[in-house]
Amino acid sequence: MTGSAITPDWIAVDWGTTRLRAFAMGADGAVLATARSDAGMGTLTRDGFEPALLSLIDPWLSTRTLVIACGMVGSRQGWVEAPYAAVPCPPLSPALAQAPARDPRLDVRVIPGLKQPRPADVMRGEETQIAGALAARLGFDGVICLPGSHTKWAHVSAAEVVSFQTCMTGELFAALTAHTVLRHTVATDGHDADAFAAAVDDALSHPAHLTANLFGLRAGALLDGLSPVTARSRLSGWLIGMELAASRPWWLGQPILILGAAALSDLYATALAQQGASAETLDADAMTLAGLTAARATLRETAR
Amino acid sequence: MTGSAITPDWIAVDWGTTRLRAFAMGADGAVLATARSDAGMGTLTRDGFEPALLSLIDPWLSTRTLVIACGMVGSRQGWVEAPYAAVPCPPLSPALAQAPARDPRLDVRVIPGLKQPRPADVMRGEETQIAGALAARLGFDGVICLPGSHTKWAHVSAAEVVSFQTCMTGELFAALTAHTVLRHTVATDGHDADAFAAAVDDALSHPAHLTANLFGLRAGALLDGLSPVTARSRLSGWLIGMELAASRPWWLGQPILILGAAALSDLYATALAQQGASAETLDADAMTLAGLTAARATLRETAR
Repeated sequence: MTGSAITPDWIAVDWGTTRLRAFAMGADGAVLATARSDAGMGTLTRDGFEPALLSLIDPWLSTRTLVIACGMVGSRQGWVEAPYAAVPCPPLSPALAQAPARDPRLDVRVIPGLKQPRPADVMRGEETQIAGALAARLGFDGVICLPGSHTKWAHVSAAEVVSFQTCMTGELFAALTAHTVLRHTVATDGHDADAFAAAVDDALSHPAHLTANLFGLRAGALLDGLSPVTARSRLSGWLIGMELAASRPWWLGQPILILGAAALSDLYATALAQQGASAETLDADAMTLAGLTAARATLRETAR
Repeated sequence: MTGSAITPDWIAVDWGTTRLRAFAMGADGAVLATARSDAGMGTLTRDGFEPALLSLIDPWLSTRTLVIACGMVGSRQGWVEAPYAAVPCPPLSPALAQAPARDPRLDVRVIPGLKQPRPADVMRGEETQIAGALAARLGFDGVICLPGSHTKWAHVSAAEVVSFQTCMTGELFAALTAHTVLRHTVATDGHDADAFAAAVDDALSHPAHLTANLFGLRAGALLDGLSPVTARSRLSGWLIGMELAASRPWWLGQPILILGAAALSDLYATALAQQGASAETLDADAMTLAGLTAARATLRETAR
């Protein structure tokens, strides 16, 4: 072994549908090295998980090493199914699933997702971010919003997830902008803050108007030269506004933490601020790592 | 010329984004022959329109023949742009556009679409179906609903289209079922009438819940084995219910004609009946032909 070799105390893995990220962790909690690839769960068959992981972390492995993973890697189509824990419960279930790794250096444990029987709902990956937020904000009692393809609103109290709701806002935005007539009308980036703000208010006042509003973007482009950036911001505002209308009981009068990518978190924070609700924003990737670290601490606790 | 040759008085053409249909018309209004292909406007460059048409109607052509076409063939990306007429106006503008055909046997005229400046909206093809409905129901005063990818609601009075609204309901349904996580959850056909009816009512009462409801289909499939047919009917009911909520001022207390494909028209009629609104259903394809025939009569009138 050369002087530059990394010997992690354990390895943290965030393994979602579209990407795989690994962190070599020191015993003191420091990140010694990171690696990432596009080998998301959605691209792999069951036999593909171990090679995909090894291609990233092989250089970090000498002796048997604990790997803690969260995300879709634990779904039925993943490496090993980590059955959902039912809310109300702490975000991190102690019952991690052992992935069937062949390489003797790998000891891979997968964090279960959460389920809610009524109304039926599930999350996988976000529970780890929630655990990270609770580690960063000890004793937090309120609502955690995790914006993304499937935005989650989770009511958290006494270190447990009490209930949650998923809104398909991000995936709806993506489907509309990529697979409908609006693909000719909506810019792929750029932001018009005034158009966004007006659209949020519009959707909160008239949520039913969505399907009629959508075609209005196309007609506005044809007849009035509506700018693609304005169209994008208006669409974004309508969808987030409709989500806020559906989620009002979740955020109204509650302390709110937003865990997401910076730009998207800002949109949600802005929309909430328009409704008089203030939210603190935390970086989602940092919270994932904090949650995986909390899972590591729990395992150590259990092993004592 | 053999005895079996067809010599139409004129040719009616319905040329949308995805399909092309031609009708050899007798002087008495009878359909002598029909032909169709998948050469929709969306598949053609400007040079492709004439060959696509000739491949269908060449056997019907001997002398110069009038061809009247409606639909996206008249859009900016079509064979010739037939500029929109502005409502309020009769559904059929007298200003048909002449397509630049090279074959001397072709005299192709394209029916303009309609536009509405405020709120911005456009239609192209549906104006011909509306003209057909007004020919079939002389003096109709009320609302015409044309369900489809882009459902139109048109207020018709004194033989004019007064105003209209487009809802992207059909295209939204298609994008959600083909390009989101719901593709694993929603059947491609089948119908659960009770689930549809409950979803229509749900959407009319709580239109904002859409994005939250959507993911509930996925979670219901994962946790409760929700049937794909029930999921499909629920999704259809939510989207049509949301459209009815947005369109209430259009249909409430109005005589209603629905022009569409049979199965889809039935869904709209059922949803409207649940709200106490009764609608008469007419076949959309028949109304297209009736509208093209009305355009032919207008041309003849003008030529006198």
